[in-house]
Amino acid sequence: MTMPEANDSVGTVYLVGSGPGDPELMTVKARRLLDEADVVLHDKLPGPKILGEIPEAKREDVGKRAGGEWTPQEYTNKRLVALAEEGKTVVRLKGGDPFVFGRGGEEMEHLAANEIPFEVVPGITSAIAGAGVAGIPVTHRDHVSSVSFVTGHEDPTKDESAIDWEALAATGGTLVVLMGVGKLPFYTQALLDAGMDPETPVALVERATWPNMRVASGTMETIVDVRDEHDIEPPAITVIGEVAATRKAVVDFLGNRTGELADHDSGLETTTE
Amino acid sequence: MTMPEANDSVGTVYLVGSGPGDPELMTVKARRLLDEADVVLHDKLPGPKILGEIPEAKREDVGKRAGGEWTPQEYTNKRLVALAEEGKTVVRLKGGDPFVFGRGGEEMEHLAANEIPFEVVPGITSAIAGAGVAGIPVTHRDHVSSVSFVTGHEDPTKDESAIDWEALAATGGTLVVLMGVGKLPFYTQALLDAGMDPETPVALVERATWPNMRVASGTMETIVDVRDEHDIEPPAITVIGEVAATRKAVVDFLGNRTGELADHDSGLETTTE
Ligand SMILES: C[S@@+](CC[C@H](N)C(=O)[O-])C[C@H]1O[C@@H](n2cnc3c(N)ncnc32)[C@H](O)[C@@H]1O
Ligand SMILES: C[S@@+](CC[C@H](N)C(=O)[O-])C[C@H]1O[C@@H](n2cnc3c(N)ncnc32)[C@H](O)[C@@H]1O
Repeated sequence: MTMPEANDSVGTVYLVGSGPGDPELMTVKARRLLDEADVVLHDKLPGPKILGEIPEAKREDVGKRAGGEWTPQEYTNKRLVALAEEGKTVVRLKGGDPFVFGRGGEEMEHLAANEIPFEVVPGITSAIAGAGVAGIPVTHRDHVSSVSFVTGHEDPTKDESAIDWEALAATGGTLVVLMGVGKLPFYTQALLDAGMDPETPVALVERATWPNMRVASGTMETIVDVRDEHDIEPPAITVIGEVAATRKAVVDFLGNRTGELADHDSGLETTTE
Repeated sequence: MTMPEANDSVGTVYLVGSGPGDPELMTVKARRLLDEADVVLHDKLPGPKILGEIPEAKREDVGKRAGGEWTPQEYTNKRLVALAEEGKTVVRLKGGDPFVFGRGGEEMEHLAANEIPFEVVPGITSAIAGAGVAGIPVTHRDHVSSVSFVTGHEDPTKDESAIDWEALAATGGTLVVLMGVGKLPFYTQALLDAGMDPETPVALVERATWPNMRVASGTMETIVDVRDEHDIEPPAITVIGEVAATRKAVVDFLGNRTGELADHDSGLETTTE
């Protein structure tokens, strides 16, 4: 979405996805806009490498702010408008893609309502790339015709039943849960109650494409123990479905070739089958 | 997934996503690998701009090949192995992300089985970016807790019921259908039969981020006519759900600001509400 500028004194806001964390997985456009921006508003999710490359002088962390007069999102919305009205070129940098559980939609609506020129710059979502770099294709011609991304951490102000785990299980497709480390016991149980096979492979991918990425594998029955044993923490995605087993074929090959599984980039430090 | 090279005489195969078509939406890594590669195997999906930037001498189109001794996929699999065994650095360039209905999983398995070093380089999927650049966030805190990607063109060798449209409707989340222009009447009917509200907003985004991108909007009841009226053709995504209406707020603002909707980048030539 590109908005022509009507007023030269108002700056443009770019809603930019950073990708999952590896600076080389940023888009060419994100890279360029970070260089050109006067101010970069961000939270922690883009990760240490990408944030470390942005000069301190133009970084503004809107992830830490809590409490106070506004909720964090309201503060960010207002800050984006204020900076643009000062004539600044603003990058609002978000982890992954701005529109995948990233509240980019709300920010876009707020900018439109305030007549601030803006542009959406998609990024690579952790929901797909986090699986991919771990050797897991989210779709596979032989196994699945759909993939669903779902939040494991429902907005507590919404009705508890907002997520229909039964319907998600019934799709038969791959499920990728974001923000789902803490509530893993809750939704694995909900999916098992809905009739999902307890042997269904599951992988947890922690800090995908960050320098200290880890992957832990199990099944619907074992994955909560696997999480606890390896102390998997956010940010991580949970990949549920037959495709999670594809990783094993690739890992076995890697093991044969290298004799050990110590390569950071391959995310193999914490593999439990 | 990074594979260390065991044998210097064997080349590496990079399974690379090109993103939806805008060369600036390629990753920094894809850009670098295209420059470094000896050979680039591709089909038409990366689009004219990205393909046009690759020197003819290193391009190999594996999308046109049909019939003959092998099926196209078998040919590609064999060709990747043969080139790597010749010591070539190979980029297998795929539209969007290699693992979203891209058969990247099959190619990865084939490479692993043949002990060819490979690496997966995620790309921006059209399923998310195609919606995003049209002003549609695939998730929205106010409306949806899940988004599902599904193929509209089921593998004819699979059981007809491989896609459970009833379950997909029941998720209540956004649905994005890929390869779904031709069978639009079939699956909109299946979703309506499953109880989806006929007033649910739907958008078709054709050639997202390509120079001639178009967007057409309607509802579950009208979208087939909208498709026919504007002659929407592949590649296009179908975005189904409340989020598809978000576009309207943004388009109205654009209209107010510019007085006309003729900007190519904003994909507004073909908008019908
Ligand atoms: C608020 S959501 C934002 C998602 C983001 N917009 C995206 O497209 O990746 C935060 C969640 O994304 C996931 N996530 C983001 N970056 C990740 C990474 N590098 N590795 C694993 N999970 C990640 C985790 O599930 C995390 O709890
Ligand atoms: C074989 S699938 C490959 C999808 C690809 N791997 C991706 O992640 O975008 C082909 C389908 O992707 C969608 N598609 C790919 N590029 C597109 C674009 N630029 N605009 C709209 N749809 C696109 C269309 O639905 C098309 O039929």
